[in-house]
Formats: sequence, C-alpha cells, structure tokens
Amino acid sequence: MWGGRFATGSDALMQAINLSLPVDKRLARHDLAASQAHAAMLTACGIISPADGAAIAQGLEKIAQEIESGTFPYDEGLEDIHMNVEARLKTLIGAAAGRLHTARSRNDQVATDFRLWTRDALDALDEASAALLATLLRRAEAEAATPMPGFTHLQPAQPVTLGHHLLAYVEMLHRDRGRLHDARQRLNESPLGAAALAGTGFAIDREMSAQALGFARPMGNAMDAVSARDFLLEFMSASAIMMTHLSRLAEELVLWSSPAFGFIQLADAWSTGSSIMPQKRNPDAAELVRAKASQVAAALTALLSILKALPLSYAKDLQDDKPLTFDVFDKTLLSIRVMDGMLGSLQVQRDAMRDACQLGYLTATDLADWLVRELQLPFREAHEITGKAVALAEAKGLELAAVPLQDLQALHAGIHSGVYEVLSLEASLNSRRSYGGTAPAEVKNRIAQWKTELGI
Amino acid sequence: MWGGRFATGSDALMQAINLSLPVDKRLARHDLAASQAHAAMLTACGIISPADGAAIAQGLEKIAQEIESGTFPYDEGLEDIHMNVEARLKTLIGAAAGRLHTARSRNDQVATDFRLWTRDALDALDEASAALLATLLRRAEAEAATPMPGFTHLQPAQPVTLGHHLLAYVEMLHRDRGRLHDARQRLNESPLGAAALAGTGFAIDREMSAQALGFARPMGNAMDAVSARDFLLEFMSASAIMMTHLSRLAEELVLWSSPAFGFIQLADAWSTGSSIMPQKRNPDAAELVRAKASQVAAALTALLSILKALPLSYAKDLQDDKPLTFDVFDKTLLSIRVMDGMLGSLQVQRDAMRDACQLGYLTATDLADWLVRELQLPFREAHEITGKAVALAEAKGLELAAVPLQDLQALHAGIHSGVYEVLSLEASLNSRRSYGGTAPAEVKNRIAQWKTELGI
Amino acid sequence: MWGGRFATGSDALMQAINLSLPVDKRLARHDLAASQAHAAMLTACGIISPADGAAIAQGLEKIAQEIESGTFPYDEGLEDIHMNVEARLKTLIGAAAGRLHTARSRNDQVATDFRLWTRDALDALDEASAALLATLLRRAEAEAATPMPGFTHLQPAQPVTLGHHLLAYVEMLHRDRGRLHDARQRLNESPLGAAALAGTGFAIDREMSAQALGFARPMGNAMDAVSARDFLLEFMSASAIMMTHLSRLAEELVLWSSPAFGFIQLADAWSTGSSIMPQKRNPDAAELVRAKASQVAAALTALLSILKALPLSYAKDLQDDKPLTFDVFDKTLLSIRVMDGMLGSLQVQRDAMRDACQLGYLTATDLADWLVRELQLPFREAHEITGKAVALAEAKGLELAAVPLQDLQALHAGIHSGVYEVLSLEASLNSRRSYGGTAPAEVKNRIAQWKTELGI
Amino acid sequence: MWGGRFATGSDALMQAINLSLPVDKRLARHDLAASQAHAAMLTACGIISPADGAAIAQGLEKIAQEIESGTFPYDEGLEDIHMNVEARLKTLIGAAAGRLHTARSRNDQVATDFRLWTRDALDALDEASAALLATLLRRAEAEAATPMPGFTHLQPAQPVTLGHHLLAYVEMLHRDRGRLHDARQRLNESPLGAAALAGTGFAIDREMSAQALGFARPMGNAMDAVSARDFLLEFMSASAIMMTHLSRLAEELVLWSSPAFGFIQLADAWSTGSSIMPQKRNPDAAELVRAKASQVAAALTALLSILKALPLSYAKDLQDDKPLTFDVFDKTLLSIRVMDGMLGSLQVQRDAMRDACQLGYLTATDLADWLVRELQLPFREAHEITGKAVALAEAKGLELAAVPLQDLQALHAGIHSGVYEVLSLEASLNSRRSYGGTAPAEVKNRIAQWKTELGI
Repeated sequence: MWGGRFATGSDALMQAINLSLPVDKRLARHDLAASQAHAAMLTACGIISPADGAAIAQGLEKIAQEIESGTFPYDEGLEDIHMNVEARLKTLIGAAAGRLHTARSRNDQVATDFRLWTRDALDALDEASAALLATLLRRAEAEAATPMPGFTHLQPAQPVTLGHHLLAYVEMLHRDRGRLHDARQRLNESPLGAAALAGTGFAIDREMSAQALGFARPMGNAMDAVSARDFLLEFMSASAIMMTHLSRLAEELVLWSSPAFGFIQLADAWSTGSSIMPQKRNPDAAELVRAKASQVAAALTALLSILKALPLSYAKDLQDDKPLTFDVFDKTLLSIRVMDGMLGSLQVQRDAMRDACQLGYLTATDLADWLVRELQLPFREAHEITGKAVALAEAKGLELAAVPLQDLQALHAGIHSGVYEVLSLEASLNSRRSYGGTAPAEVKNRIAQWKTELGI
Repeated sequence: MWGGRFATGSDALMQAINLSLPVDKRLARHDLAASQAHAAMLTACGIISPADGAAIAQGLEKIAQEIESGTFPYDEGLEDIHMNVEARLKTLIGAAAGRLHTARSRNDQVATDFRLWTRDALDALDEASAALLATLLRRAEAEAATPMPGFTHLQPAQPVTLGHHLLAYVEMLHRDRGRLHDARQRLNESPLGAAALAGTGFAIDREMSAQALGFARPMGNAMDAVSARDFLLEFMSASAIMMTHLSRLAEELVLWSSPAFGFIQLADAWSTGSSIMPQKRNPDAAELVRAKASQVAAALTALLSILKALPLSYAKDLQDDKPLTFDVFDKTLLSIRVMDGMLGSLQVQRDAMRDACQLGYLTATDLADWLVRELQLPFREAHEITGKAVALAEAKGLELAAVPLQDLQALHAGIHSGVYEVLSLEASLNSRRSYGGTAPAEVKNRIAQWKTELGI
Repeated sequence: MWGGRFATGSDALMQAINLSLPVDKRLARHDLAASQAHAAMLTACGIISPADGAAIAQGLEKIAQEIESGTFPYDEGLEDIHMNVEARLKTLIGAAAGRLHTARSRNDQVATDFRLWTRDALDALDEASAALLATLLRRAEAEAATPMPGFTHLQPAQPVTLGHHLLAYVEMLHRDRGRLHDARQRLNESPLGAAALAGTGFAIDREMSAQALGFARPMGNAMDAVSARDFLLEFMSASAIMMTHLSRLAEELVLWSSPAFGFIQLADAWSTGSSIMPQKRNPDAAELVRAKASQVAAALTALLSILKALPLSYAKDLQDDKPLTFDVFDKTLLSIRVMDGMLGSLQVQRDAMRDACQLGYLTATDLADWLVRELQLPFREAHEITGKAVALAEAKGLELAAVPLQDLQALHAGIHSGVYEVLSLEASLNSRRSYGGTAPAEVKNRIAQWKTELGI
Repeated sequence: MWGGRFATGSDALMQAINLSLPVDKRLARHDLAASQAHAAMLTACGIISPADGAAIAQGLEKIAQEIESGTFPYDEGLEDIHMNVEARLKTLIGAAAGRLHTARSRNDQVATDFRLWTRDALDALDEASAALLATLLRRAEAEAATPMPGFTHLQPAQPVTLGHHLLAYVEMLHRDRGRLHDARQRLNESPLGAAALAGTGFAIDREMSAQALGFARPMGNAMDAVSARDFLLEFMSASAIMMTHLSRLAEELVLWSSPAFGFIQLADAWSTGSSIMPQKRNPDAAELVRAKASQVAAALTALLSILKALPLSYAKDLQDDKPLTFDVFDKTLLSIRVMDGMLGSLQVQRDAMRDACQLGYLTATDLADWLVRELQLPFREAHEITGKAVALAEAKGLELAAVPLQDLQALHAGIHSGVYEVLSLEASLNSRRSYGGTAPAEVKNRIAQWKTELGI
C-alpha cells in the first residue's frame, strides 16, 4: 500500500499492534456504501469515466454479496477492511479499482464509515429502548394500585405503588432516548471528500455524496472531519447514562428477588442455579447488567483519555476508537434486551410487597401531614410530634395505626380519632394525588399520557 | 431537625462526613428562589395563610440580602444550606417558618435547587464558549492565507493554512455548544412538589411553581424527580467533551510554542518562567488546561460510578454530586476563558510556519493527484510513483520541486514540466477548493458563513 | 521570581489557573524540613558559608513557628508555598536567603516535599487501618458463633457465622496494609539535588540530605527524580483498592440495617433522620463511604490520564497531582475512621440473623454432601437429588428439615433418618471445620492467629 | 448443571449474557492443574477412592492433551470452561467424574484458576520488562555522551545526554517490576477448598493442594477466598502504571521522529506510510501504545466500579473480571514488546540533537551558577542577571556564548572572560556530575551500577 517508500517490511509485532481487520471488518457494509456513493459522485463529476464508474459499482456490489454470504476472502496481511475491499476490487475489475481512491483518503473514508455505523447503532438502541419502555408501561399498568414500600436510603419511607416505581424508569428511559436522538442528529454530517485533512483539488461534489448516504450535509472543515471523534464520545455518554439507569433497575431486581425482600420472582428462563448449592435461584442477568454498566462507563473514560491532548489531525490512536465503540454498543443493546426479557417475565409477589408495608412506619409522614392540615401545626412541630409517636410505637412493638389514641393525645392534646383514617396504607396511597404522585389514579393518568405520547 | 427519634447526638466523625454546608452553600441563591416559588404556590392554593405566606416571602428576601452582603450567619451545626435557611427564617419570622416545608421534602428541594444552578452553569459555559468562538474566527480570518504544515501522526502531511486549522476548532466548539443547549432543554423540568418520593396529599399546583422558576413543566414522576441525576451526567459529559477539544488545542499550543516548531509565541501575560532556568518561557496555562481535561473526565467517571446500581429513590451517595459538579463547572469555565485569553494574545510566527512547509515533502500528494489528472493513472499507481520520487528526493537531499525532470521521467515517461506548477506551496494550497478545504478562498467562504450563522 | 525575562505581568486568568498556594500550603511543614536538610548539606559541603547556613536555618525555624501558630503571612501573589517561604526568608534574614536555592530547582524541591508528605499519609492510613482491624477482630470474636445466612448473588447460600463474615474483611484490610507498606518503601528515595532535570555542577552530597530526611537513598536519575509520579499512582491505587473493600462493607451495613434484613441497628450517633419522614433511621455514613470509593477511584483515573503521554521532564500538568492526592488521602482516612466508628458501635440483631437462616434452604448443600459421604453418590448426582428435595419442600411450604423421610426416600431409596442430623443450622455450621471455614471453632482459631500476628 | 430446580430452560438472551466460555477457555490449563491438585488431595485424604482418583487424573491428563492439540470439543451450551471440562471428564471416565466436584465449588475453583493465571501473567510481564530494560541500557550506553536538549514544559531547559534521558526510563521500569513482584507475592495464596463461601465439612487438606500448585499457603478465610478480587486490581494497577511510563516514552518517540525535532528515525520495520500521502513515515506503533495506556487504565476503572459496593460473597458481576484482565495483560505485554522493538531498532540522529542544543539558551543556568560560584552572588540575584542576559541575546539574535563581554559586564561589572568556559555545551554537560546527574561520566557510572544490579 505504501511500498514505494520503505526498504524493508514490517516487524511481526508491528503488524500485530497495527492490525485492525478483525475489528473493523464490522464496518464492511458501511464502507461499501460509502465507496458506492463516492464512485457515483466521481463519475457524475467527470473525474472518473462512466466505464470505470460502472465497473467499480459492479465490483463493489459483488463484494457486498461476498461479505453478506461469508465468502469474502479476508486477508490479514492487508491490515484493515478498507485495504481488503480495495484489493479485492482490483482482483475483480483490474486497474480501474485504483481510481476509487481518487479525492479521498482513508482518513475521511473511515470517518464516513464509522458515522454511518454509529447512526445505525443509535437507531438500534432506540428501537430496543422503545420495546423496553413498552414493557415497563405494561407492567406499570398492571401494578398501578399494587402497594409497596417506597425506599430512601434503602429504608422504608412512604407507601408507593409498584406502578409508580416503574414509571420512574419510564421517565429515565425517555430522556435516554432523547439523548440518542440528539446524538444522531449531531453526527449526521458527511466527512467524505475531506481527503487527508486539507480537502482536495479534484472538483468533487461533497453535497451529492452526503445526500446519497443520508447525511444532512457535508462537514464544514476537512481537518475537523477526519479528526473529530466527539460523535463517539456523545454516543458513549448517552449509552453510559442509559446503562446507569439500567443498572439501578438491575440492582432493584437483585434486591427484590432476594428472600429478604421477596417482592418478585424471576422467571426460570432468567434465573440460574449453583454448581454446589442446589436450592439457589440467582439473578445472574441482572448482576451482569450491573457489571456492563461499569464497563460502558469505562469505555467512555478510555476514549476521553485517548483523545485528550491529541493534536490534529488524524493519529493512529484513533484506530482504537472502534473496539471501544463496538463494545459499548454490544453491551448496551444486550443489556436493554435482557432487562426487557427479565421485566416482561418476572412474577410480582404482591402479598410480600404489601406485607413489607407493615414494617418501618411508612405512614408517619401522613400523620405529620394530618397534624398540619387538621390542627394547623407548622410542619416542623408536626414532624417532632410524629417522631415521638414513632419512638413510642417502636418501644411498644406496635404499628402506628395501632397506637392507642390516648398515647397520641399525650403527645398533642388536639389529636382525635379522625387521625386513624390517614394511617392506613390505602388512605396514604390514595391521598398522594399531586401531579406525578403515587396515588393509583394519578399513576393511571400518567400511563395514559405516556401511551398517547408514545403512540402505544 | 429529626431530634424526636434519636436518643443521642451524632458522632463527630459522622458529622464530618455528613456535613455539606461548605459545598452546598453555593446553592443558596437558587434555594431561596425555589422557596419563594414554593411559598407563593402554597399561599395561592390556600395551604398556608396569606399572612404566613407574606411573612415567609419577606423573611426569604431578607435572607437573600444577608447572603448577598455576606452577613448571613452560617451554622455548620445545621448540616446543609437548606437547614441553615430554614433555621434563619425561624429566627426572623417565628413559627410561620415551619410552614414553608409543607408539601415538600429536602429531596425535591435540593433537586430543584440543583437544576436551577445547573441551568445557569450551562448558560455561563455557553456564553464563554461563544466568546472563544469569536476569538477563533477573528484569528482564523487574519490567517486565512497563512501556510503551515498540516500534520497527521505529527508528521507533515500536506500544506494547510492556519485559518483552516483554527476553523476545525470552530466546528468542534459549535457542536459543543449544541450539546450544552440540548442538556439545558432536557433538564428544564421542575422536581418541586415531588416531596420525598411519593408526591403529596396537599392540593398543590406544581405547574405554578414550575412556571415561576422558568421550568418548562413539572417532572412527571415523583420518584424519578428526587433520584434522577442524569441531568448532571449530561452536563458533565458535555463539559468533558468540550474539555477534550480544548485539550487538543492546548496540546497544539504547547507544541507550536516549543522552539522545535516555533510557530507561535505566547504573550508575556500568558507565559511563565523558571526558578532556576532564566531563559524559560513556559506555556503553563495550556498545560493546565490539558490537566483539567483529565479531571473533568474523571469527575464524570466518579458520578457514573456513584450512580451505578443505586436503588431508588434518594440515597445519601447523591450528596457527593455537588462537589463534583461544581468542580466540573469551575474547571471548564476557567479553561474556556484561559484558552480565549491565550489565543487572543498569541503572536503567530508566519515565517517559521512557512519554513516548516519546506520539510517533509508536503506536496507529494499534489504530485500524485497530478499524475491521476494529467496522465490518467489510477491513484494507486500514481501513489507508487510518487513514493519513489520522494525516496529519490530524500536520497539527494532535495525538495520535491527541485528534483530534475529527467529523474521524474525515469519514474514515468509521461511526466512533463507542467508538473512543477503543482509542487509549489501556493499552488497546492490554492488548489484545495473543495467544500471545507484549505484553499484560502474556501477558508474565507467558511468564515463568512460562520459570521452569518453566529451573528457576528 | 522570573521577572528578568518578561516585559509585562501575568493576565489575571493566567494567575487564577496557575495559583497553587491554597492547595500546596499543605506541604509547608515538609518544604521547611527539606530546605533545612538542603541548607545543612550546602553548608557541610562548603557551598554556602557557615554564617549563611546558620541564618537560613534560624530563618526556616522561625517560619516553621509562624506556620504552626497560624501567623505566617501567606501571599497569593507569590504563586506557591515554595516562593512564599523563600520570600519570607528574605524578609527575615536578608540576602542570604537567596543562597538557599543553590543547587536545587523547584522541580526537585516539590518532588521531595511531596514524597515526604505522602510517606506520612501512608503511615496515617496504616495506623487508622490497624485500628479498624482491631475493631473488626473484636466484633468477630463476640460473634464467632452467631449464625447468619451466607449469601452469594444476594441469595441465601449456606449458614455462616457473623464472625466468619467479618474475618473476610480482616483479610482484605491486611492485604491493603501490605500495599501501603510496599508503596511506602518504594517511594522512600530522595529527589533532592536532582535540580531541574540534569543534576547540578555544585559538589553536593545527595546522600547526606537524603539521610537527614529519612530517605533510604537518593534517586538515581535526575530526570526521573523530577518527573516521576508513580509514587502517587501507587498511593492512589492502594487507597482505591482499600476503598473498594470499605465500600463493600458499607454496602452490607446499608443492606443489613434495612428492615428487609434487620441484621443490625446502627447506633444513634451513626444514624440520621429525615426532614419529612419522622420515622427514618438512615445509614448516611455508610452511603457516603460508598460514594467516596467512587471518587477515590476517579482521582486515580484522573492522574493516570494526566500522566499519560506526558513527555519528560517536568510539565505544569503535574501541579494538579496535589489536589487529587490530598483528596484521596482525606477521603480514605475519613472513610476508614467512619467505618471504625460505625462498626464499633452498631448493635447486632442476633435473632433476626438466626431467623433469616430459616429462609432459602441454607442447608441444602449439607444434604448433598451427606448423600456423597453416606451413600457414596457422586456429587453431581447428589446435587440433582437435593435440587428435587428443595423443589419439593418449596412446593409444600416446608423447611428442608421438615420434609418427611418418605418423601426424601422417594428421591433416593437409601436416605435414612440420619440425614436430619446434618440439616440443622448448628450441625451445618459446626461441620465446616476446614481451614478458613465458618465453624465457630475454626473462626476462633483464626482470630487467635490474627491476634498473635497483629500483636493484639 | 442445576436442572433439578428449574422447570424451563434459559432464555436465549439469558444464555448470551451469561456465556463465558469464549473468554474463560483461556483458563483451561490452570483449571486442569487445579483439578489435578484437588483430586490428588481428595484421594490422599480418603475422600475419594484411589481408583476414582486415578481415573480422574488420567481423564484430566487426556483433556489437557486435547486442549493442547486443539481437539477438545468445546460446547457453548455448557456456559463455561469448568463445566466443559467436567462434562468431558464424564464422557471420558463415567460417573467417577462426578466426584471431582466434592468439597469445592465453582467459586473457589475459578478463584484458584485465575490466581494461577495471573501469577503467570505477572511473570510474563516481568520477563518482557527485563528485556526492554536491557535494550534501554544498551542504547543508553551507546549514547552516554550524546548531547540533546533536556526539556521542561517542552521548552529546552538544560543540555542533557540521551543516555541520561533513557536512564530515567530504566528507573521507572525498575520500579514497575518491583510492583509486579509485590503483586505476585501477595496473590500467591490458595483459595482451593474454600468451597462456596463457608468452607467444607469434608476433612480436606488445603495446605496440600496449595503446595501442589505452588501457592505459599491457603487463604485464611473462605468467604474472602471466593469474593476477593484485589489481586486483579493490583495486577491492573501495576500494569496501568507501567503503561503510563511506556506512553510517556511513546510520546517522546512521536515527538522525536517528527521532522520538527528530527532526533530519531524509526526503522522501516516500525514505520507505516499513508494511503494518500506517499512521503509519510508514521510512528503508528508508538501512537498505539499511547492509546493502549488509556485502555489499560480504563479497565482498572471498570473493575473498580464493578467491585464497588458489591456485597459478599460471590456475585455474577465478578464474571466480567476475566475479559478485562485478559485485555490488560494482552495490551500491556504487546506494548512492552513493541517498545522494545522500536527502541532497539531506531536510529539516533546525533547531529540533529546537537543542533537543537543551540536553540533556547540551554546554558543559561550554567551562567547563573557561575555567577553564584565565582562572584558569590545569591542565586536569586544571579538568576535575575541571567534573565537579562538572555533577553539581550534574544534581542540581538545571538547565542549566549556569543554575547560580547562588555554587554555582560553592563549587567554585572564582575563578569570576566572566564564565564565563556561554562557556556559551551560540553562544559555544561561535564559539570553536572552530582549523583544521578547528566555528565557522561556519571551516566556511565549509573549504567555500570545497573548492569551489576540486573546481572547483565
């Protein structure tokens, strides 16, 4: 490829560290599409002859079929997918193949291929996320009135419904999809024709090849076009943030499926056993999603570090953007689908959730709010009285609703029997009807809104 | 604050790790604004009396003045800014202060404050970036025709203009600003009224307080409202990506100001000396921007790790989002401004840039392209011939333009004297007129487009 | 300091990014010690006069007192602690102060100061870890026979004792201390006298100043001496690994103090309440230790990124090693102490732990092992039979020990009533006497070994 | 493997995320060694019969041959390497195979395998590092007197020799090897026999299997044995620190081979060309080493995040320790060898290095030192005078040594012609004879010491 200049061949270790074919062969489809667009543009602009253009187009088409069918003869001696394609093209159509690389460089070529690939990757994540969102909504709807303890600090805080809890993830994933959309829109510019870094003296039409590839426009600076990788950083950031959300949900599945909670049972198809302990039912998939979140975040860290202080324009460090990006995509897509599968098939143990609401004085806040509303106490004073009521209940081993009225009146003389109406689980839940609140009626409202918004 | 429940006070170490006041006092202004909006809403909804509402509003106003003037009596015994404000309010207006915390929790309170703060932070970064963009455009315009070597792999590649090179950063920063805008829009929802995690039974109007604070709408799920921190992750991602861009430019300033390159001289006001070597002129600020990029990226890593696998809803781990976020903002804002200062004042050494174009056979690609255009050779064959011409020139210690015609003809008989027209620096530069190319005319076109787009 | 060279002063932003005094003043004590050693060496070698040497020594002593007593007049205009000390020395003793900087540079000076500081930091972490180890051993001894469920995948696996569980952390922390010791030994070399990067032409005695400062030897290469920061990376790595261990324990405290488990109750002095939910008892300190672990790891990430690809020798990027290192130290030391405080004061709920052993068929492995031992079945066959027994028990809502013999015999005819002996909690625990096993007797053995090894 | 418990098989996605065989097959050799040691111990302890023990030993031996020769029938349906080996063993020897898993679990099994693997990995890194050290010493010896500019802030600072510069890396790599040794020693304990987490009721001899595998001792706590992964964190930390050092050297190779410096020429075997620019000679391997440093550091970040807050004992998250660790090893080993290859074959351009010493007033410090020594000026005053001399020389376009005496005397009347003796390159170099200094004589001393220490 660059033989004119060097006296001796490459060291074997040099080839080993330089070889990218096993990784970048994944770009084959997009490389061919970009080459087709480039060749068509060169032909249209009169830079290569119609005959050569047609030969190239047919050759590329043939190569596409070979790659699709698995018969393409990859050659690791040719370093990367671009050289493999070009060498194969030469075999197939002869010298005209050499005209394809007119007015481009591998620098803009790989940038083009990779933007096309990443655009597809964003779409794939978006589609999988939409399916997960639908599953969350379906489960939330079925559990819109299922009481469970809401936690802060992993301590029972207030009663919520499972539907309310699941809707929190709907919100997160919806924002995640927004980030995917923004990233897609921002990256959708064509580097093709930037050549090495300076543009080209051939009278090319960058707008034409950009349009052919579905790009909104050609990138506006040739040097930026070949060295920018913020489109990958943004792709990874969006993925890492989404993985953070999935990892939070995965953690909850691990907790909830532990007998200590017992809120859910994962389906057999999503559980594993133990090689030594026959009774085990392990939430391996949820644990692995957690671990993937760490790795997706670390890939972002790696690419940030690779790009840090890298002078323009292209440098070989950029070659390592590909394994990192592919890894982020594979792990994120798999995690979304795995969460979808687990969530769609798990069994909710409603009784256990309800039973857990009896622990931890969940309606204490309702008592405090009642004191504010009914007795006009400032919240802080109500909070103090309620704290004492809880301490009293704890000392006596009672639930709040079972503390005798006279004991409550000893804390504040104005308390009357009406207070017991707010100390029940259902009363507490139904009362929280503020927008976005946990009252079953409000949860159902939100689900209806989501269905409209998502067209489900 | 929660004294009703506990028999003994906190351990001193417990207080030390729990104390957030020195950090979160930075939220004071936004905390007061949020409390004002909350109190006005409570009053309008009839949840607190007009008299109490007025007293609270005046008290908060007084506190705002105290904080502004530095007379506010911060008390570390009160853990955080929220408790400090509330305690002070009680001192100022008495028991009515206790009514302010009706229908809210510190969980939605701090989420509201922090979204307001981050919205301002994004605006500040955007404004500073706009100024840096204007400086880049100004310098690019002055150097639209200044030749310098374009590098790949830090090896001279092709001639470019300094204007072209600087415009690459204009593109990057413009996309950076796009990310800031997207982040701002996505975070601009109000958590206020979500209470602890379940919503509230008070008949509040979340739309009203959201509007008062400039939010587009209330957040749609109370549990998400208090536990979501993706708005910070997105803020940090956008900052880290921008810092990556600044670090690349900083690296180039370090390289270019080294005598090995000698392309620029930093202004005295942006240079430092040495305590031992009197002749030194060090680019400390550029080096520090590089180091800040690493730290901003690491802050993102830290928050991703903090949030990973954190069950809903609020957990105290979230307290550490604040020092990390403040640090990201301070470092990013300072770095943008420092780059603006350095770039605005540095002196371009045009002669050194031009001299450097004589090294490295920069017009070799022009020779190859000429062979393609004039002799109809396939690019690959032209590349091979040019490689041999370079090897020949190198062996003879000549520039390409100085290699005798007969030597070139020995490589390909069709080469004629017209070839020398493309081997000059100016010819090479002027030829690259493709969109986004380095030709001075094209660089000026792009600058004109940017000025229109940015309204400069 | 370098005024001879520059026409104009620094830009205000330049000063802002360059200023290190607020951070590096923390090195004051070590800077003075290093200067004392340097001055004594210069005097002994005849490079400065005895009179000047004595004046410098007295001046430095005076400054040490000023810093100790808080009267030292820090001047931010002087950039860093080194310049502050030198300027103050000049005020105190006049021109002789200027001789102190002979045969050294700020590069070796700061490297020396920072190695001294880090040596102390390692010792402080080691001491705090030793105290935590002692607390762990004390609690483990008291709970050597307290049964609790051992978990894998957060699913109950086999019965263990709490003492056994706590001893796992003793092992981890002991290795952590080993890493601290190794790091201390490796960093304990003196950079002093390396000057800027080339050594010095003055006939100094580096061995002498090294010894005076407790270093094992002078560093062997001047360029390495000023640019090496692996001693900090190793310090941070050791801290990050230790923090990982503390975070795992912190997570368990969070889990165990949740009513879902109810295994422990944190002392009031280590619990916090809620501003809205009066009944809450939150494990904030444990959560914060978790969050600190993320941040210590990220600081390591930051320094690795700062150092990556940084050419030799000194660069200003290295200035940012200090805030990162100080932060790692502060967070790690605080976390160790906080864990010590929480562990030392928490109350074990032995009944809840024992009750939890009734969930999850914890002795299933004992059944499988019995089948292997008594009936000579291969383990895999025994595992299969036990799995069926568990499924049977689960279907009937029974514990394993309550499954009727005939049901067991239906799974394998050879099972006899002797099997019930191994299905009890105590039998299971007592049987696991392999070295490092959970049997109370073995736990006590290990505690005794630890006490001997640690001299407790 | 755990079929007794579950009604339905695994979901395909569950299998996809759970499958570890393609990764952990790399542990095959160590898994077999551990199983051999375990079986021999079980036999010696009378837990399995001699006949079964012999059958197992022969079966494992056969499997080892199959794996070695590539004929082992891997089955992805069997999830991991452990199950593959066990299933194959059953095929080969029948039911006795089921006895191998007595008194162990996959938890201690994989921990044992992985410690054995990591021990070998540390040895391999150490061996490659030793070779690189030897290359560095060889090149340093040849260039012990080759002058080049020493840089700080990438600005020329003082003259050094290339030998001196290369010795800095010898120091770094020597410490790196120390970290490898420490990590090896600390991890060399046997988890085998810890079983799932509680030890075992079988009367095993953990000391015996530990010795057979070359471990110093059995690990002292069964729960720690299966859940500890600090041995990997330490392995990764040591690798990441070493990679940081290699990346600094790689950066210097990139800089030095740029025509702007021109200090070295990489061998053809370690250079690459360009697909578009025929004259290029790119240092791809050095750039890739830089990029690998970022990725090794990120792998450490990933594992720290995976382990953060993970409750004991085994969790499936730990499965992802393997791809990360293998990746760290592969990248680090390759990078060491690549650096060795590049360094061993590059050509030093001594003239270019010497020419560069004429830029940047490298002997300014020598002038300042002369003023201190000869005229007894305090260093600070000497520094001020020298700064003015440099400014004067710069204004006149002269080197320091060419500034007329009368100009110098205008700065300080005491300056005499003797000053010119220290302003030459050789005088400066030869003067810096302090221990670890750059004087050729001192560089040779250090090389001799290293050769003795390393037994070269």
